[in-house]
Amino acid sequence: MGCSIITFPSFSHLFISTLLLLTTLYITPQISAVRYPIDVWPKPTTFHWPQPQAITLSPEFTISAPPHSYLTPAVHRYLRQILTEHHLPLVTPLLNLTGGPPLTTLTIIISDAAAPLTHGVDESYSLTVPSTGASAVLNAETPWGAMRGLETFSQLVYAKPARVACGLYISDGPLFPHRGIMLDTARNYYGVEDLLRLIRTISMNKLNVFHWHITDSHSFPLVVPSEPEMAAKGAYGEDMKYTAADVKRVVEYGMEHGVRVVPEIDMPDAEWTDRLAAEPGTGQLNPLNPKTYEVVKNVVRDAVSMFPDQFYHAGADEITPNCWKIDPSIQTFLSNNGTLSQILEMFINSTLPYIISLNRTVIYWEDVLLNADVNVPSSLLPRENVILQSWNNGPNNTKRIVDSGYRAIVSSSDFYYLDCGHGDFTGNNSLYNMPPGSDQGNGGSWCGPFKTWQTIYNYDITYGLTEAEAKLVIGGEVALWSEQADSTVMDSRIWPRASAMAEALWSGNRDETGKKRFAEATDRLNEWRYRMVTRGIGAEPIQPLWCIKNPGMCNTVHLA
Amino acid sequence: MGCSIITFPSFSHLFISTLLLLTTLYITPQISAVRYPIDVWPKPTTFHWPQPQAITLSPEFTISAPPHSYLTPAVHRYLRQILTEHHLPLVTPLLNLTGGPPLTTLTIIISDAAAPLTHGVDESYSLTVPSTGASAVLNAETPWGAMRGLETFSQLVYAKPARVACGLYISDGPLFPHRGIMLDTARNYYGVEDLLRLIRTISMNKLNVFHWHITDSHSFPLVVPSEPEMAAKGAYGEDMKYTAADVKRVVEYGMEHGVRVVPEIDMPDAEWTDRLAAEPGTGQLNPLNPKTYEVVKNVVRDAVSMFPDQFYHAGADEITPNCWKIDPSIQTFLSNNGTLSQILEMFINSTLPYIISLNRTVIYWEDVLLNADVNVPSSLLPRENVILQSWNNGPNNTKRIVDSGYRAIVSSSDFYYLDCGHGDFTGNNSLYNMPPGSDQGNGGSWCGPFKTWQTIYNYDITYGLTEAEAKLVIGGEVALWSEQADSTVMDSRIWPRASAMAEALWSGNRDETGKKRFAEATDRLNEWRYRMVTRGIGAEPIQPLWCIKNPGMCNTVHLA
Repeated sequence: MGCSIITFPSFSHLFISTLLLLTTLYITPQISAVRYPIDVWPKPTTFHWPQPQAITLSPEFTISAPPHSYLTPAVHRYLRQILTEHHLPLVTPLLNLTGGPPLTTLTIIISDAAAPLTHGVDESYSLTVPSTGASAVLNAETPWGAMRGLETFSQLVYAKPARVACGLYISDGPLFPHRGIMLDTARNYYGVEDLLRLIRTISMNKLNVFHWHITDSHSFPLVVPSEPEMAAKGAYGEDMKYTAADVKRVVEYGMEHGVRVVPEIDMPDAEWTDRLAAEPGTGQLNPLNPKTYEVVKNVVRDAVSMFPDQFYHAGADEITPNCWKIDPSIQTFLSNNGTLSQILEMFINSTLPYIISLNRTVIYWEDVLLNADVNVPSSLLPRENVILQSWNNGPNNTKRIVDSGYRAIVSSSDFYYLDCGHGDFTGNNSLYNMPPGSDQGNGGSWCGPFKTWQTIYNYDITYGLTEAEAKLVIGGEVALWSEQADSTVMDSRIWPRASAMAEALWSGNRDETGKKRFAEATDRLNEWRYRMVTRGIGAEPIQPLWCIKNPGMCNTVHLA
Repeated sequence: MGCSIITFPSFSHLFISTLLLLTTLYITPQISAVRYPIDVWPKPTTFHWPQPQAITLSPEFTISAPPHSYLTPAVHRYLRQILTEHHLPLVTPLLNLTGGPPLTTLTIIISDAAAPLTHGVDESYSLTVPSTGASAVLNAETPWGAMRGLETFSQLVYAKPARVACGLYISDGPLFPHRGIMLDTARNYYGVEDLLRLIRTISMNKLNVFHWHITDSHSFPLVVPSEPEMAAKGAYGEDMKYTAADVKRVVEYGMEHGVRVVPEIDMPDAEWTDRLAAEPGTGQLNPLNPKTYEVVKNVVRDAVSMFPDQFYHAGADEITPNCWKIDPSIQTFLSNNGTLSQILEMFINSTLPYIISLNRTVIYWEDVLLNADVNVPSSLLPRENVILQSWNNGPNNTKRIVDSGYRAIVSSSDFYYLDCGHGDFTGNNSLYNMPPGSDQGNGGSWCGPFKTWQTIYNYDITYGLTEAEAKLVIGGEVALWSEQADSTVMDSRIWPRASAMAEALWSGNRDETGKKRFAEATDRLNEWRYRMVTRGIGAEPIQPLWCIKNPGMCNTVHLA
């Protein structure tokens, strides 16, 4: 009853109630998408289920698939989950059982079993689950598409004894090839188990990239075999490092989940190469010091061998002129009419060709090209080898990137930065000591306010671009910067908000009429959040349980 | 080195760097409080430690205390923790060991062992830890003060083998008698184990009240023996109830931790008393229906027997006129020149005296007196029996409460509501479907932005009051409304932000010169957050680990 809406919010005080009651009671929500008894997140591109039914899953249910070093463990993993999960959605699916023989097999057919897990690999699949008890069939171009299909199938299984939605046909595939999560493990450390759990959840959400922002000036936890001093001096502690064995484990686990691991190793500290000052702490490499490049090359070479992915993120949001300016040799250079951009050019010129020579595509943050004060000409950044990741100025900078002819990964901070608006890490900040009644700011951090899942869901990463321009947008990443995040909040800070981007980049954020479908997505995301929780992921809730058990009843008056 | 500051923030882009570098490098932070090698949270009122040293803790260390039904289990608990915790602060305390005999005993002396755990009970204590190996002595007026002192002692123990700070004298006690956390378990459910962990953490922080907002119109999980239909129909599920045994466990656990459990049972739903409509869902009691009062009295009587605390919270933020107006009998009443306020008066008149007759002090939300449209005259709310809890308009409403002669519990939403600015639970809200570049609002929820720990720490709950007015402010509560919170985020959503209020209400937020001490508090809160984590509480981080290992180095230019 409408009244419940009124009394729900903690702000259930008069000034809100009138608003909600009158409209919620009497307006039919303008939700055009069909709500299925059980659904998949992200919502598949095409999901035909004309007569929703369910079929019992045989206790001897098996999955047959061609052998493949990474698909095979995935198949085992999914089979175990399918046979044991017994998930009960919060809203019980009202589905009749076929009454016929149970489903005994899922057959996986792959066209190109040799396709490697690279950027742009075909991840499409089709899934048929008949009502008759004949084998369910999962067709995929590649083993990686098969993994996506397996995830879909697992979400259609529910209850105890297990049953699965049947009489359905799904044809599915992503809108964008690059769909990732960036995690900063330098400002605060995350154990390897956390990273594996993150990869598992990335895969569950049909995301395919773990952008591992592994080092920064705060800490250098990566044990680089040729430069062991880095981690020895730069890690937060002996138990807060990533050894070559740790990295191998993460990379392999990624492969088994169809998730590419892209490292970002912001260039190491000056301390070991330049003895910049007597004070402890970190800083930056001095690009005027030749030893710098020796160290950088060692780090790059080792990193490239530890991380087999084609993409290598070389940072470049760590270019901090004022830090450089402290160095005497740089001061001299600048006083002789040198510019900071020239210094950056030197650095790029001495490092980028080397990385490219190791057969890598290099990602830089947008700053390297777009920063107003310190940047390099595009002639130094070959378009076939360099991709730029946007973070500032929303779609404007995405446009500048693609208009310069570069492929873009979109991480606009206004939408995709997960740390925004949830506290402020700077100490001694009198901004928070204002008299009551003062403007409280935006919840802390430079990029507040907090990005709600709805805000993330509704962001169109090709907003304002022509069709031609949009072709250069290869995808997006949400980013968790860890000034105020570590293991205790990794799951809740990322999920289910990252799931919102996952659907937008997989099958979009609009219904078949072209309208934004976030209203209908709410109920599905509630169920998906709950399923992630029962699967061991500490995703945060987005609504009271009452709203979930009474779908649509916690809507506002606003219509999409 | 200052440079590290520049490169740290995820916003480490040029427009910030200059600001931070120049000042951080060259300005001595204006922090006037002494930083001890190891400290206590909340910071004790008086902490004399002229020559910081540490003494080995004997493996046979014991605590001697007079027997007491609740202090005795507390002593056992603390002894076990003291002997086994072996906490290593992030910044290793640089303390020499005395080199003399180890500390073998803590002797607890209590003046008034019979003092019950009630509002206003004396919680003061003094603690002496000599360097000589003679017994450490904890003096307290009551067993509850002894518990506070035990917590302090436990925080002075560290390392393996265990050692404790010595050569110190602490005299400590709270500024305000009512210091609590409100948790809403109606919008989303929390298991009993979560509530016990919450009470444990409340106690660790020297807070003393768990305000259990146990029911609401969303759900009614409390099994009321005389009205079993409530929970039968109102709980989210069979496994989402609180039985009498559960409540007993929570209350007893509270006693063992010196934490009072104050129930808030918002009046149950109309459905069972009034058959308001054919639709499923909840609503409110109809105050014109006599059966209402029968039900209410049964619920109150049972609740009072389950919750022995003197304070009983009777809600009154659930008065939602538009919901009442749906009811035909109420419509009739109103059309005959009746007012909503009269209806509320009827309700108060029929319920409040009864609760008072059961020897309870009743807390209402401020609305019952202060709401512009629906309120009752103060003649209906005897000042000796009624306390008002503020939530709106910051210090203004606190002032209105005390100027009307009532004691106030401060929960100003601008500062103390923990759910603000972290997402929006309403569905179908086009506020989040605005074009890029639009105002993004305040992070969701009506009370955004997110309240940073610094904002909470700096709030003076008697702001703007005269000394006489301030006498009626008995304390404060942070509140976690659970539209978007449940077990997965309970710890991180509450801690360490509630710790900020805990210190402000225990020993204040100013240093000895009268200046706000949040800068110095940052380093202490970092360590305290970490200790809570190692004690099993998923408190969220407030700074990068680098900042903690380099105290003061992540300060901004702003001076307190």
